[in-house]
Amino acid sequence: MTTNVLENLQFRLAARPVGMVKASDWQQVVEPVRELADGEILVKVLYLSLDPAMRGWMNDAKSYIRPVAIGEVMRAGGIGVVLASRSPKFAVGDHVSGGTGVQRYWIGKADDKAGAFYKVDPKLAPLTTYLNTLGMPGMTAYFGLLESGQPKAGETVVVSGAAGAVGQTVGQVAKQLGCRVVGIAGGKEKCDFVVNELGFDACIDYKHESVRDGLKQHCPQGVDVYFDNVGGDILDTVLTRINLKARIVICGAISQYNNTEAVKGPANYLSLLVNRARMEGIVVFDYADRYHLGVAALGQWLKQGKIKSKEDVVQGIEQFPQALNMLFEGKNFGKLVLQVAQD
Amino acid sequence: MTTNVLENLQFRLAARPVGMVKASDWQQVVEPVRELADGEILVKVLYLSLDPAMRGWMNDAKSYIRPVAIGEVMRAGGIGVVLASRSPKFAVGDHVSGGTGVQRYWIGKADDKAGAFYKVDPKLAPLTTYLNTLGMPGMTAYFGLLESGQPKAGETVVVSGAAGAVGQTVGQVAKQLGCRVVGIAGGKEKCDFVVNELGFDACIDYKHESVRDGLKQHCPQGVDVYFDNVGGDILDTVLTRINLKARIVICGAISQYNNTEAVKGPANYLSLLVNRARMEGIVVFDYADRYHLGVAALGQWLKQGKIKSKEDVVQGIEQFPQALNMLFEGKNFGKLVLQVAQD
Repeated sequence: MTTNVLENLQFRLAARPVGMVKASDWQQVVEPVRELADGEILVKVLYLSLDPAMRGWMNDAKSYIRPVAIGEVMRAGGIGVVLASRSPKFAVGDHVSGGTGVQRYWIGKADDKAGAFYKVDPKLAPLTTYLNTLGMPGMTAYFGLLESGQPKAGETVVVSGAAGAVGQTVGQVAKQLGCRVVGIAGGKEKCDFVVNELGFDACIDYKHESVRDGLKQHCPQGVDVYFDNVGGDILDTVLTRINLKARIVICGAISQYNNTEAVKGPANYLSLLVNRARMEGIVVFDYADRYHLGVAALGQWLKQGKIKSKEDVVQGIEQFPQALNMLFEGKNFGKLVLQVAQD
Repeated sequence: MTTNVLENLQFRLAARPVGMVKASDWQQVVEPVRELADGEILVKVLYLSLDPAMRGWMNDAKSYIRPVAIGEVMRAGGIGVVLASRSPKFAVGDHVSGGTGVQRYWIGKADDKAGAFYKVDPKLAPLTTYLNTLGMPGMTAYFGLLESGQPKAGETVVVSGAAGAVGQTVGQVAKQLGCRVVGIAGGKEKCDFVVNELGFDACIDYKHESVRDGLKQHCPQGVDVYFDNVGGDILDTVLTRINLKARIVICGAISQYNNTEAVKGPANYLSLLVNRARMEGIVVFDYADRYHLGVAALGQWLKQGKIKSKEDVVQGIEQFPQALNMLFEGKNFGKLVLQVAQD
């Protein structure tokens, strides 16, 4: 096909944000798609995954992955369809998941390491599920909970960001393992959802009730595992309710990502000492060699209707800046996905 | 023997301290020693162990052990000699270690659970060693480092309070395991001691140099294990230098024990996430069923001259209030011991 008739709208990082990301931190660029070289594929982006971690990638700080450079297309995971291929690895029409970046089209080597594209099957699950339960959030939840949280049947598992991409799967997997599961989320609608739709035992609405009182009420046996997506005061409050040998999984700290002052450290961290408890950080990439096992387990539960995958789909790549900020305002309800094009 | 000719000087808790412990928080009581009942022993206290944890026991807060009650003899571990016995478990003249409390004489059941007395052999090691390397600090260091820190040969181990009771043994054990060991201590004298006498590879004098610069200089490969006795800013600084999969052992937080405001939480705790690292609290009592293994290992190294036990002995039970506060002013040099009587 002739690719250079396609106009590629991209969002590039224009400036390192201070606090919340502003419109001026982005630069919109439109450029024609170039011709394919040998070994390359052209992917039309259908859906983009919007994740709290993206805020960290915009900072010029040493982390588990290099920062996005000024002028570079913003890093993002996405689902797309192969429009053209000069690689035996993918055929035209294949649906793929990989590091597309925030743009309409991705072009590059089929075996590009940063892209890390792999095929997904739209017949097995809706495409957006591959950005949620069967994608990075699901893998984060599954392996983070099992390997670091190590929940046992009968234990109490608390998860913050309970209606979010990672939290929803953490809670549902813990229920499958026979745990008591208490979510923490913002607003009645989210709390009702995780209890009524996802089967959590209870959910604390941190915007309208005391997290401390909620934990007392809903975790009468204390907290054995806390899967933390938010940090800040909620982490500190949960630390006052942990049991002996509790495990705290540090997956994120969304309350702190837009801080312009220092991160708030957990003042109650000495509860770890009193309770001989543990706090451990996780990063999903560490489990990459076993993603297929996580996908198999979660895929099976999805198929059996034992767990659900809830996405919040915003339409149009032009909405990217506002959509990303929804994450930090607690406005998304389920895994936040940006639809870029129709399949 | 007639016991009631003996006058028992005791330090009882008079008030719950706010911040640093004041003289008025103690009540000195002198009472005669009562007659022994069947199954009881009378112990003349020779040495008392003064430990940072004692500060915590004075607070009315839920912890791993119940608080000392107002009016109760202050809890303390000690070494003594059996003066009278109506129990087959101990004979007159036996040297024992146990929970004597801050007093001249302990009287009670030979199998008292809180006392938990056991025999020690003054021929194998000086009596004060049984309050240090062969006592709770040694067990804390040995099991905390091995089980939570899990150091491997060639790794870098950093320990704060390096010249203190726990720190000195942590560093020496880590050296025996083939690790690079960097201490953090206050003052040139302590730093020189841990390097020249105890064989640490380096020591950072936090009172006179930047801990950040010291870690950069002395831990060129980063920090794999941090054994923390101090908390506060030093913990936060070490968090910026940890390696992937680092283990942070939370043994204490001596910088925070006299706080009248909230404990300073580690603002850099998200370094745990970036580095998939772990922070775990330890309490020595959890290893009680294996103390004999720790004593055997450390005793053997002591006997072979491979490790040393350094105590700082203050004379006279009357000095108890001032001596205890030395811990929080960094004034002790080695394990702090109060000599109550001659053997």
